[in-house]
Amino acid sequence: MTNLPGGVLAPVATVFGPDGEIHEARFRANLDFYADSALDGVVLLGSNGEFATLSTEERKRVISLGTEAIGGRKTVMAGTGAESTRDTITMTKYAAEQGVDYALVITPHYYKTRYDAAAFKNHFLKVAEASPIPVLIYVMAAYTGIDMASNIVIDLSTHPNIVGLKDSGGNAAKVGEIIAESAPNFAVLAGSANFLYAGIVLGATGGIVALGNVAPQQCADLYRLAKAGDHEAARQLQLKLIAPNAAVTSRLGIAGLKYALDHVGLNGGRVREPLLPLTESEASYLVQTLDKAGIGKVA
Amino acid sequence: MTNLPGGVLAPVATVFGPDGEIHEARFRANLDFYADSALDGVVLLGSNGEFATLSTEERKRVISLGTEAIGGRKTVMAGTGAESTRDTITMTKYAAEQGVDYALVITPHYYKTRYDAAAFKNHFLKVAEASPIPVLIYVMAAYTGIDMASNIVIDLSTHPNIVGLKDSGGNAAKVGEIIAESAPNFAVLAGSANFLYAGIVLGATGGIVALGNVAPQQCADLYRLAKAGDHEAARQLQLKLIAPNAAVTSRLGIAGLKYALDHVGLNGGRVREPLLPLTESEASYLVQTLDKAGIGKVA
Amino acid sequence: MTNLPGGVLAPVATVFGPDGEIHEARFRANLDFYADSALDGVVLLGSNGEFATLSTEERKRVISLGTEAIGGRKTVMAGTGAESTRDTITMTKYAAEQGVDYALVITPHYYKTRYDAAAFKNHFLKVAEASPIPVLIYVMAAYTGIDMASNIVIDLSTHPNIVGLKDSGGNAAKVGEIIAESAPNFAVLAGSANFLYAGIVLGATGGIVALGNVAPQQCADLYRLAKAGDHEAARQLQLKLIAPNAAVTSRLGIAGLKYALDHVGLNGGRVREPLLPLTESEASYLVQTLDKAGIGKVA
Amino acid sequence: MTNLPGGVLAPVATVFGPDGEIHEARFRANLDFYADSALDGVVLLGSNGEFATLSTEERKRVISLGTEAIGGRKTVMAGTGAESTRDTITMTKYAAEQGVDYALVITPHYYKTRYDAAAFKNHFLKVAEASPIPVLIYVMAAYTGIDMASNIVIDLSTHPNIVGLKDSGGNAAKVGEIIAESAPNFAVLAGSANFLYAGIVLGATGGIVALGNVAPQQCADLYRLAKAGDHEAARQLQLKLIAPNAAVTSRLGIAGLKYALDHVGLNGGRVREPLLPLTESEASYLVQTLDKAGIGKVA
Repeated sequence: MTNLPGGVLAPVATVFGPDGEIHEARFRANLDFYADSALDGVVLLGSNGEFATLSTEERKRVISLGTEAIGGRKTVMAGTGAESTRDTITMTKYAAEQGVDYALVITPHYYKTRYDAAAFKNHFLKVAEASPIPVLIYVMAAYTGIDMASNIVIDLSTHPNIVGLKDSGGNAAKVGEIIAESAPNFAVLAGSANFLYAGIVLGATGGIVALGNVAPQQCADLYRLAKAGDHEAARQLQLKLIAPNAAVTSRLGIAGLKYALDHVGLNGGRVREPLLPLTESEASYLVQTLDKAGIGKVA
Repeated sequence: MTNLPGGVLAPVATVFGPDGEIHEARFRANLDFYADSALDGVVLLGSNGEFATLSTEERKRVISLGTEAIGGRKTVMAGTGAESTRDTITMTKYAAEQGVDYALVITPHYYKTRYDAAAFKNHFLKVAEASPIPVLIYVMAAYTGIDMASNIVIDLSTHPNIVGLKDSGGNAAKVGEIIAESAPNFAVLAGSANFLYAGIVLGATGGIVALGNVAPQQCADLYRLAKAGDHEAARQLQLKLIAPNAAVTSRLGIAGLKYALDHVGLNGGRVREPLLPLTESEASYLVQTLDKAGIGKVA
Repeated sequence: MTNLPGGVLAPVATVFGPDGEIHEARFRANLDFYADSALDGVVLLGSNGEFATLSTEERKRVISLGTEAIGGRKTVMAGTGAESTRDTITMTKYAAEQGVDYALVITPHYYKTRYDAAAFKNHFLKVAEASPIPVLIYVMAAYTGIDMASNIVIDLSTHPNIVGLKDSGGNAAKVGEIIAESAPNFAVLAGSANFLYAGIVLGATGGIVALGNVAPQQCADLYRLAKAGDHEAARQLQLKLIAPNAAVTSRLGIAGLKYALDHVGLNGGRVREPLLPLTESEASYLVQTLDKAGIGKVA
Repeated sequence: MTNLPGGVLAPVATVFGPDGEIHEARFRANLDFYADSALDGVVLLGSNGEFATLSTEERKRVISLGTEAIGGRKTVMAGTGAESTRDTITMTKYAAEQGVDYALVITPHYYKTRYDAAAFKNHFLKVAEASPIPVLIYVMAAYTGIDMASNIVIDLSTHPNIVGLKDSGGNAAKVGEIIAESAPNFAVLAGSANFLYAGIVLGATGGIVALGNVAPQQCADLYRLAKAGDHEAARQLQLKLIAPNAAVTSRLGIAGLKYALDHVGLNGGRVREPLLPLTESEASYLVQTLDKAGIGKVA
């Protein structure tokens, strides 16, 4: 692994038991499966890992469990962003100590009316300076309301310890602009399987895709077809993955992702409230969509 | 104090020292001042209290310090909302133990694409059931992106332990609709001094207003003039307070509020990053605006 | 009538016949009724007058029919805004020739990414210079996506021929800010019955309210109670009017307004496509809401 | 030309003279140049053709002038959408009579709170039924506020006279979803040069791109490289065109496009108010951006 992250990573679900606590054995079992899968790595504590409803102690536990379970077999990235700069630095250092390869730092977002270019630059530069491991910027506008402007990303890309961006917006023009104007060796990763192929043809180094949790082989195949220049096969696969991807992300959220995990033979289980489980009709729509795309048992 | 919260409360700033940690003596000094002021109460851990960048331990410390400093002289409300339902309940119980009078529970907001009416109702009902103290719903769309629909608030108003709403949006139609259709004894509080008077004439019981931190007497005067039916005086005072209110909230944010605190002789100090201090021109605009509105030394 | 417009005006519906053309006799009949009602005036070619789907010729016809039908018995305002500055001027001059008292000029909105303060100021100043009659600015963010910033309105308020603002947003803080800082003799009119009372207590001179089409007496009563200082009666009436107002505006739109017109004995009739008529369940919700608020036959 | 529109079309600027009227000779000269260029066609009365500020008579004149000037040498598409269904049909029929090949029909957008799936379907189906020529749906969310949902487009794609979509949003996931699920022989065209390459690899048949006005050869080259499978060359050209494309669209709008037209030796001239000309610093930024991308004299 070099400093330039790429390939296909899954932002893994955090698995809870019936008591609502992290179910360590089941979480480890999923990770063990991914470590031997076609994926290039995992992301701990992404949005799909329900980081937002985990306590600080739980976030640390996910990091230590996760790095141990992967055991160096794949790249491990971890979401270490908090609302404050200082808590972000603390968690990033903890992740580095535990052997995490990259820190994925979400844009702070609560006091959004005052987070201008100066505030974002100061935040990410301080985190990057303090971090023992390379940092990626994480833009997730659908949840944070922050669609960080391209020129801020481009400016930050010149820092040697800010090595990439995960953008979940799917805007081809923005991805293209950042690839065109960012520093060399700055990696752009697609934040969803629905624009993995378009991202790669523009120059993205890969993707961090929720669908990789339940269809790791298909997502990895899409990446490899695109990189190999087998464009018509890649296009066909990309189009096929759009509906199941939407089902486990924008349409049904994490409850959909976890239902799908159970469906394919991995560990999903319950979501943490205020998230609610799928309704029956949502579940049946999901299963139908997975079936139609040929996504079934993996384990 | 009855179950129906009202009057004018200030969402107090959390005071940090030069080391970036909570400065207990200065925080206490502010609270001691407010306890003897014209205000009806304080809110700990509101958005202006920078709750979003405080750790769980710090939040607890603010609650215990705050209740102790006020010492029963005024109503104490505390922001106890977290992204997860369970952490919200834990913090609400802690607040109750420490003697807080009301829990102010912000709408969860991260996984917003899945937070529908069912999710919000389940969240607030579970918190209300578990809480030893009365609960108010806190809607702060500018920061959270969640402008909870009136009908959800109206439905929740029928729960005996959900006693009110703080809405920071300033939409007179929405405030009117909720007052018209919510359960009797459900209190609506204006979330900003800029619509305190309009809110009161529609039936709001008062307000939680950032400007109360720096101009407690004027804010309390506005409330009392409006309640006493001295409408022309209330109107004139309301119009006068709009510019300084904007300066310490929407225009300059918490850095503006803290600068103004220092300016009037209370303790403001630094903001926590990623928030940045005022620029020189912002500071000079602020001072000019306060001067023009006759807001000066209070302590 | 002075240069300062006020009181309660209804933005009248444009009545179409079964052939989809303007039904002149029915339109005139409505206007004749309003001319003898408690209203202070009418607005032709407002959003509720379906100006956006009328051709230029039809707009002219509505103006000539409307001024003739009112015959000087009430104030007549007309929506004369078009996307281009020059077409706005042409229609404004036409309205003046026909005896219209005030031109209500909506913010241009199509090329919104380039409509900055300079573009808006240039537009409204050129229209005001060219217009033989006083001009009001019309802000209707829900339809146009343009919520013109307060400071632009405040700057424009100093022009002697820009005499007022109709704002349909209902934001009490914004209304207050504009009243506080605009030129003397600049009239602010509430753009919806749901904040007519709150607007008046802050200093609005009245309102242009769709509900005035179907409940002219109640809307006029609300205005007069508020102006007379009978605040508790005004408050009660305001709260009562919120649900029927929402029904004929934000919830059901012009199809709701026209259904309600027929219901109260005036002429409503069909909407012009792409607007569609109410569904059965919408119609039954509407009738129930009107009944509950005591809004029934007027003619 | 078949029923499936594709290739690269320029949405041509409407040229005004010093008197603010359409300058027919200069407009014709531009079209004559495009008719012999590498472009596959032109679009009259697109957003970049300032259709929104043209009168009905002027729109007709642009259509008759445009079809005559092109004289069958290239595909001619025309924007025929109006806010009302009936005016859209009238203009579409006129365009057909004048020899226009395709009608590009923008989503109606003024009464947006009532434009649901039923309203949009009714509108487009009625227009398609009445139109003598094939119809394309035009989604332009940045100007209209309407980002029509994929499923509505997909449903409409089954009508034999609705043959395509121009989407200006650049969202790769949405473009992919529509390509995957729309009827066979439904053409998706990229609405901006900044995602022309990404669109084509996903299956778009081409694009309607403002940049084609000033850099027709480069835009056509990009299309042909992508179709020919010369992906690395296409990618490099795509990245190079992003900055000049942004300059003449999202950043500087039509004033930028027209300044650029003059710069490359075609006819640009003034914009119609309320649009304003470029400031000096905008103009100098534009020229620098064009130079850097190698976009210079074409005529």
